[in-house]
Amino acid sequence: MDIGVSETAALLREKDNILILSHTHPDGDTLGSATALCRALQALGKHARVTCEDAIPDKFDYLYRGLDAIDFKPDFYVAVDVADKRLLGEEFVQRYGERILLCVDHHPSNTKYAQYTLLDPKAAATCELIVRLIRALGVEMDAAMADGIYTGLTTDTGCFRYANVTSYTHRYAADAIEAGAHAAQINRVMFETMTRTYMELERLAMDGIRFFFDGKCAVITLTQEMYRRSGSGEDECDAIAAIPRRIEGVEIGMTLREKKNGKFKVSVRTNDSIDASAVCRLMNGGGHARAAGGEVDGPLEEAVRTAVEAASGFIG
Amino acid sequence: MDIGVSETAALLREKDNILILSHTHPDGDTLGSATALCRALQALGKHARVTCEDAIPDKFDYLYRGLDAIDFKPDFYVAVDVADKRLLGEEFVQRYGERILLCVDHHPSNTKYAQYTLLDPKAAATCELIVRLIRALGVEMDAAMADGIYTGLTTDTGCFRYANVTSYTHRYAADAIEAGAHAAQINRVMFETMTRTYMELERLAMDGIRFFFDGKCAVITLTQEMYRRSGSGEDECDAIAAIPRRIEGVEIGMTLREKKNGKFKVSVRTNDSIDASAVCRLMNGGGHARAAGGEVDGPLEEAVRTAVEAASGFIG
Repeated sequence: MDIGVSETAALLREKDNILILSHTHPDGDTLGSATALCRALQALGKHARVTCEDAIPDKFDYLYRGLDAIDFKPDFYVAVDVADKRLLGEEFVQRYGERILLCVDHHPSNTKYAQYTLLDPKAAATCELIVRLIRALGVEMDAAMADGIYTGLTTDTGCFRYANVTSYTHRYAADAIEAGAHAAQINRVMFETMTRTYMELERLAMDGIRFFFDGKCAVITLTQEMYRRSGSGEDECDAIAAIPRRIEGVEIGMTLREKKNGKFKVSVRTNDSIDASAVCRLMNGGGHARAAGGEVDGPLEEAVRTAVEAASGFIG
Repeated sequence: MDIGVSETAALLREKDNILILSHTHPDGDTLGSATALCRALQALGKHARVTCEDAIPDKFDYLYRGLDAIDFKPDFYVAVDVADKRLLGEEFVQRYGERILLCVDHHPSNTKYAQYTLLDPKAAATCELIVRLIRALGVEMDAAMADGIYTGLTTDTGCFRYANVTSYTHRYAADAIEAGAHAAQINRVMFETMTRTYMELERLAMDGIRFFFDGKCAVITLTQEMYRRSGSGEDECDAIAAIPRRIEGVEIGMTLREKKNGKFKVSVRTNDSIDASAVCRLMNGGGHARAAGGEVDGPLEEAVRTAVEAASGFIG
């Protein structure tokens, strides 16, 4: 059932012992949303905790600073930025999948698996909804919550660069900065600094970039062998997914990442007129209009063929 | 004489036939400020025009769309984002240098050469002051003014990434977006798009990156041969100079570009504690604390040796 911000606040106000779940391959928005909401619930005197099936990349450590790690038996489960319960991860979907009370999300593809869903597909980040929720809960945003909010806003918008940014995104960023968010440091960690291993992975990736349809489609492939050679891991390769679309003339940029089971995760980024989520629906996936994801079978050459085939119908 | 926003508005309101001057090597802030202010003055029924001694790069064409190119004999001269009258250019400083009525600027180094100066060194961009001025003039910001404002805000902050961003920067960006600024397209032109030839040049550059002093110094070299192989040119390689410093652990990042005469232009970027201009003084150059330039003799290996030798005394 879809509910609004004030209903969501009312719902949370009457509950306690709340476990907040993030999606696997956690990013700044799911973690920023989870930690900011957790802090807001704790400010109301509630027991609240955050969790994720996957390990949290070190660069997000600051989100957890001073976050009370209270132990309690959860009575209620809240998923943030999780469009489909399968994105909770195999173990978590077994454990919590049927018991999600509330989902707060901004993905148009949200499958409405939770009992209550607070969804705004126009929000650039789930963190925008968390700002509104914190306000509706009557909690004053502190610097730690603000760091969570700012992290979600900046990471889901490529530092306010993408077409999903609205005036609200900027106003919430202003609010977060006024509440004490460490904006410049967060941006440096998220966008500026690259590890030697990432640099090496990007180098290998760029060496193998391929173009199709007169350069309108660019494909980067990342294999387990490339992770081994570079010393990098899957957690470092999010930034690479943005590269193919940036190349002049490219309408559909795709990045294929080989999983340990031999399948390939596909990230699709499109320009203007092409619906990335429609492309990804042909690859058992979905997402946003300009950024979406799917999955295809290996081996590598077959995966590339399948992905390019999926893209072919959309090239102008 | 320093004046405030409302005094500046009062001053402009009583004048007519206003020529607005931008600095040489024009960037998004000086051009966005000039065109937005010009449109606001024209909206008040005044004769106003913009000019710059240097040619305007094509990527800024959209700022001039539909801007009335009224011909008139200027009575008053306004400089925007021009910290020092010498930055008007050799010819313009001769022609207008002693006659600038008003300067609107955000550089702390402003030399107060104008009769009246509206200066806010805390503003991330001069465009922030132009927003306040447009309001004080009682003009409603239209989409064309908003494009100018947004351009200045985003280009002077690296797309809202740098430490100079305040909550005001974000609020003015929100205002510009609500007034119709084409934010995503502007960001794409300014930051996103890379040509195939640039991509190839960066790939070659990254293939040859070298590290010194336990990875504290990273050096990228660009040779005439690499320009030939990639099809790229020197005009495309500014972005590459930012790369070496971004690598984790690097304190001094250097980029050496081979000139046609066989000498090498050196760009130095440093983190936090190292003075880039001091490093470059050892290479017949200078500049800012974090970004500076110099020149060394070839051939390649000797150039690298000279540059690394210059850096050696500064490595912690």
